[in-house]
Amino acid sequence: MSSMKKRAELTNVIGMAQAQYAYTIDDGDFYDWPNFFADDCFYQITSADNFAQGLQAGLMWLDSKAMLHDRILSLLEANVYERHSYRHILGQPNISSIDGDEVESETSFMVARITREGPTDLFATGRYVDRYKVAENDAKIMKRIVVLDSSYIDTLLGFPL
Amino acid sequence: MSSMKKRAELTNVIGMAQAQYAYTIDDGDFYDWPNFFADDCFYQITSADNFAQGLQAGLMWLDSKAMLHDRILSLLEANVYERHSYRHILGQPNISSIDGDEVESETSFMVARITREGPTDLFATGRYVDRYKVAENDAKIMKRIVVLDSSYIDTLLGFPL
Amino acid sequence: MSSMKKRAELTNVIGMAQAQYAYTIDDGDFYDWPNFFADDCFYQITSADNFAQGLQAGLMWLDSKAMLHDRILSLLEANVYERHSYRHILGQPNISSIDGDEVESETSFMVARITREGPTDLFATGRYVDRYKVAENDAKIMKRIVVLDSSYIDTLLGFPL
Repeated sequence: MSSMKKRAELTNVIGMAQAQYAYTIDDGDFYDWPNFFADDCFYQITSADNFAQGLQAGLMWLDSKAMLHDRILSLLEANVYERHSYRHILGQPNISSIDGDEVESETSFMVARITREGPTDLFATGRYVDRYKVAENDAKIMKRIVVLDSSYIDTLLGFPL
Repeated sequence: MSSMKKRAELTNVIGMAQAQYAYTIDDGDFYDWPNFFADDCFYQITSADNFAQGLQAGLMWLDSKAMLHDRILSLLEANVYERHSYRHILGQPNISSIDGDEVESETSFMVARITREGPTDLFATGRYVDRYKVAENDAKIMKRIVVLDSSYIDTLLGFPL
Repeated sequence: MSSMKKRAELTNVIGMAQAQYAYTIDDGDFYDWPNFFADDCFYQITSADNFAQGLQAGLMWLDSKAMLHDRILSLLEANVYERHSYRHILGQPNISSIDGDEVESETSFMVARITREGPTDLFATGRYVDRYKVAENDAKIMKRIVVLDSSYIDTLLGFPL
């Protein structure tokens, strides 16, 4: 298989996984969010400034699927009545490296926030810096760093990203 | 063919149909809009709140291709001089079911409105809840429910969505 | 190969090239921007009004790869300290014609501007009207007309688009 064909195939696989991810956090069942990740995973939210400087400190830092579950549960308990809705639009994943079944990619996103009685506005923009493990019928996130373009976002409101 | 391959292929086919749809309503010939639908089709615009509650009432309800034609004609006659322009950005379709040649998918969208002398703003966000009939060289919409995230949108201005 | 298969394949190839282009101008190395173009290329930024009227005058007009290099260098020298950041989200390319290895497509985009201490806003929307030369492992832009929906955009700030 040519490198172009391989890349196209993996772009499709990861693109489908991303579309399902976005569906789940916007319209589907929130509780399913951790299922997009491998058991031994890493999820971080940080700003572009921090990321560019290689700073570890971020706005959120979760390093196992169990922690993702805990976090989503506590969020749902806290915010069940008042949550805004969000709409994620993702660009196509740009694959930066392929190493066996591990694939690194970056994907741009925009997130709109829809308030109940007010306007819809652009809540956040940024990119996912990802490592995926790709299997025949599946692609799980091993590592996702959500790099927000702006440092002035109240991420807790928009979680998960 | 593996289920993953089948899904990837259908995602491509529907993705291409969506891109052409968006092209037609933003930049192409408006009159072609009904041609994306099967003769015996259903098109509805509703809000996320109504949709979640299973309410039939929507902002617009058209149940044949002939009605789509009528609607687009009357719109063009009414608004030919004053129409704002719009820009639709669609996410990748997320396929939820495949039953023979009938495929159900959901696709997120953002719509910007460009006013002639003012700013560009985020007009609407939401998702298409679709059923497609897929043929070898074609995919026609059998059913499209446009679910708007906000209930506070003057849809008539932005039609078709 | 059926025409649908061919179209799907080319949509993938061009989609990957676009994702890489967006990555480069938003997050990667700016200096690489000209490398997405063929040596003998054409790049123009214009407004939808001018484009619809067939007017040649545009906001920017570059007709060789060397000119693209010059332009990006002068931009970087002028703006190196003060540059805002931008986020491009592209729709899927809609292929309008295939002639041997030359493929024409249109792709919608939204661009958000992220100011250092202020809000994120929708900076520009529009479409790329492109001609690509597609090779086995590559797709180079022969011609890109960036058609901005609004005539009220300070393009120099957001260049390259």
